[in-house]
Amino acid sequence: ELRKLLNEFHYADIAEILDEVDLEEAMYVIKLLDSETTSDVLMELDEDNREKVLRNLSAKEIAEEIEELDTDDAADIIAELPENRQQEVISQIEDEEHKAEITELLAYDEDTAGGLMAKELVKVYETWTVAGCLRRIRGQAKDVTRVHSIYVVNKQNKLIGRLSLKDLIVAKSDEKIADIYITSVDYVYVDEDVEDVAKVMSKYDLEAIPVVDENMTLLGRITIDDIVDVLKEEADKDYQLAAGITSDVEADDSIWELTKARLPWLLIGMFGGIGAASIINGFSDAMLKFPALLMFIPLIQATAGNVGVQSSAIVVQGLANDTIDGNILNRLLKEFMLGLVNGLAIACVVLVISHFAFNTTYHESLTICIALIAVIIMAALIGTFIPIFLDKRGIDAAVATGPFITTSNDVFGILMYFMIAKFILGF
Amino acid sequence: ELRKLLNEFHYADIAEILDEVDLEEAMYVIKLLDSETTSDVLMELDEDNREKVLRNLSAKEIAEEIEELDTDDAADIIAELPENRQQEVISQIEDEEHKAEITELLAYDEDTAGGLMAKELVKVYETWTVAGCLRRIRGQAKDVTRVHSIYVVNKQNKLIGRLSLKDLIVAKSDEKIADIYITSVDYVYVDEDVEDVAKVMSKYDLEAIPVVDENMTLLGRITIDDIVDVLKEEADKDYQLAAGITSDVEADDSIWELTKARLPWLLIGMFGGIGAASIINGFSDAMLKFPALLMFIPLIQATAGNVGVQSSAIVVQGLANDTIDGNILNRLLKEFMLGLVNGLAIACVVLVISHFAFNTTYHESLTICIALIAVIIMAALIGTFIPIFLDKRGIDAAVATGPFITTSNDVFGILMYFMIAKFILGF
Ligand SMILES: [Mg+2]
Ligand SMILES: [Mg+2]
Ligand SMILES: [Mg+2]
Ligand SMILES: [Mg+2]
Ligand SMILES: [Mg+2]
Ligand SMILES: [Mg+2]
Ligand SMILES: [Mg+2]
Ligand SMILES: [Mg+2]
Ligand SMILES: [Mg+2]
Ligand SMILES: [Mg+2]
Ligand SMILES: [Mg+2]
Ligand SMILES: [Mg+2]
Ligand SMILES: [Mg+2]
Repeated sequence: ELRKLLNEFHYADIAEILDEVDLEEAMYVIKLLDSETTSDVLMELDEDNREKVLRNLSAKEIAEEIEELDTDDAADIIAELPENRQQEVISQIEDEEHKAEITELLAYDEDTAGGLMAKELVKVYETWTVAGCLRRIRGQAKDVTRVHSIYVVNKQNKLIGRLSLKDLIVAKSDEKIADIYITSVDYVYVDEDVEDVAKVMSKYDLEAIPVVDENMTLLGRITIDDIVDVLKEEADKDYQLAAGITSDVEADDSIWELTKARLPWLLIGMFGGIGAASIINGFSDAMLKFPALLMFIPLIQATAGNVGVQSSAIVVQGLANDTIDGNILNRLLKEFMLGLVNGLAIACVVLVISHFAFNTTYHESLTICIALIAVIIMAALIGTFIPIFLDKRGIDAAVATGPFITTSNDVFGILMYFMIAKFILGF
Repeated sequence: ELRKLLNEFHYADIAEILDEVDLEEAMYVIKLLDSETTSDVLMELDEDNREKVLRNLSAKEIAEEIEELDTDDAADIIAELPENRQQEVISQIEDEEHKAEITELLAYDEDTAGGLMAKELVKVYETWTVAGCLRRIRGQAKDVTRVHSIYVVNKQNKLIGRLSLKDLIVAKSDEKIADIYITSVDYVYVDEDVEDVAKVMSKYDLEAIPVVDENMTLLGRITIDDIVDVLKEEADKDYQLAAGITSDVEADDSIWELTKARLPWLLIGMFGGIGAASIINGFSDAMLKFPALLMFIPLIQATAGNVGVQSSAIVVQGLANDTIDGNILNRLLKEFMLGLVNGLAIACVVLVISHFAFNTTYHESLTICIALIAVIIMAALIGTFIPIFLDKRGIDAAVATGPFITTSNDVFGILMYFMIAKFILGF
């Protein structure tokens, strides 16, 4: 009965349930499922859970599941296996064509179009007729879950255009493909970055895009469902980086995994704090003369951190969306102005509060206000400069926001505060 | 010649160019485009630029563009117009059916399935034959850019299943739809939240999903390209919220707009800084006796901020991905353990450094270490509790990370530091 019940569920729902239960129960359920569902369920499991399940299956069993998957998913699963098992599983795949296709896909970097594409697609030659085409598609389409576009190639297998299934149905059956196909076809190169593929597909509202090599030979096809997953993963990763969490963790991971992901940034922040302590220590005599200044260290530090995070987040996002052009000087000038405006606004409020609530002297108030403005401008400039600098060096700018910016601004902010105090109060 | 050149560009590329030039040039180009391209270009423009362009067009001209757009895009553009122009434009739409459909769509909240769906879809009755169906589809499909699924309804217009175009082509022409359609069809209710629609479509890898009311009456269809835009916007918004930027701004917006988006959080941070100043002021006598403690204020504050942001980011993400179950106590217990582990690790390092580099006394070192552990645990708990609390109240937890958590942790962290110092050093 459990088997009957399970067959009424969607594989994505079964996977969600199996992610919650323990391994033994999961294996029991997996053995009950019919073979096609098993492979789809495997594909949808959390990566850690899939690894455990696969460890409990023989190479032969894995190969049987692989046979039922589309080539892109098959290659992804094999790529997750340990090196020695990969060969074992591949050698057990019976369908020679499937085996060759998977082996081809395994060669591509997972962050490129090649790593995301599947070999399943519907391809027609320009010389065919509509009727012949429909006949052949009935054959090819069995392997292709969703048809999307039909790609038109010439004799050399080079992509020359596309057709929609709708175009084909609307056309007369004796027409030649060469007369009805659409020559403007979007495509991506096999070594293009997946984030760029996502941008192209989202910009042109595509549900599938063909992948070609530098000679325009048609190699595969990327579908939007996989792009949706890429977008989600990228967004989650950037969000975590901005929060100072290094590896890909989730709320329900173990304390050990969460510590590994969180402690490194905390240690960096700690060294920043030690740096700030040294600075204060260096100015300790002066501080004894002007103790009022000490009260405002948290304000200076918090403001520097907040401004830096704001500036860097906008730049990181602008770089990701290509809305920032190369001119770094213009960008810094704008942040300078922005820092000046925000700094003046905040300094005015603080001036009033510090004078009336904390009875600071005229010179102390002046020191605090000028330091605030200077620190805000500095934080805005650092927050802008570092991501652009990293981006120019080919490093993902997303690492540069959050704790990284906060920590550097903490240290530089406090240093600047004391230097301005020294200049104005003359200790 | 410019006109010829422009017609070779994709509308999304033309829109990208027009977003860069000034209004006068944009209007000149828009007048050159053929009518169908104009409407698509309008749809792809940045919201601010579209507003300016529309202000330069008459109600009649806007209505003409609206006629060429799918109902979902048409309704979105009309919704952006000022109230009085909306009626003017609607009354100028000549196609009565299009007008009625747009008016219907305008009634739905933009954050629900109704606000995202289009009326364009291919619908067949279960009583039709395959041949009759193909004939009718050739008619209906003219208005529908991409067919995706064909939705099967009964006489009462209630959704009972679906068919793919492929199924239809593969079937024999005298078969009845009732005999070949697939009864398991995913759908969403018209008042469902767009983020939930995105989750369903991404989970089941759908390219389109039908929208129904509570009686299963088929109302419209949502396509994945619009979901991709929703995911992107949501990710950008959450990223900005985490960085303390309130409204939807971009790197190339004006200084005034950027200030409006950034100053509010800076002011909140400033009040936190003033709060911290009051606390230090309140303990100023004690501080004169133990000046070494002052040096570590930045460390305490930075650590509290970093831990709080990490905890809240994980919780916010977990809530968004439904990986956090309701049990708040378990969650807090886990964060407590995590805080303890991280706190011990950091306290050990600081203990050694403060002793050797800053010559702190035994009691001072103890104070700093215990305060660090306590503050880390507190920050982890606050960072976990606040997002969950907001989520339970129906408030978007994404507002609770970034500067909000940082600011509250700054204040509480410093307060806790002094209280622990008072207890251990006894001033
Ligand atoms: Mg299987
Ligand atoms: Mg792959
Ligand atoms: Mg799009
Ligand atoms: Mg669109
Ligand atoms: Mg796929
Ligand atoms: Mg990225
Ligand atoms: Mg901070
Ligand atoms: Mg038009
Ligand atoms: Mg809408
Ligand atoms: Mg999916
Ligand atoms: Mg999938
Ligand atoms: Mg649409
Ligand atoms: Mg959200």
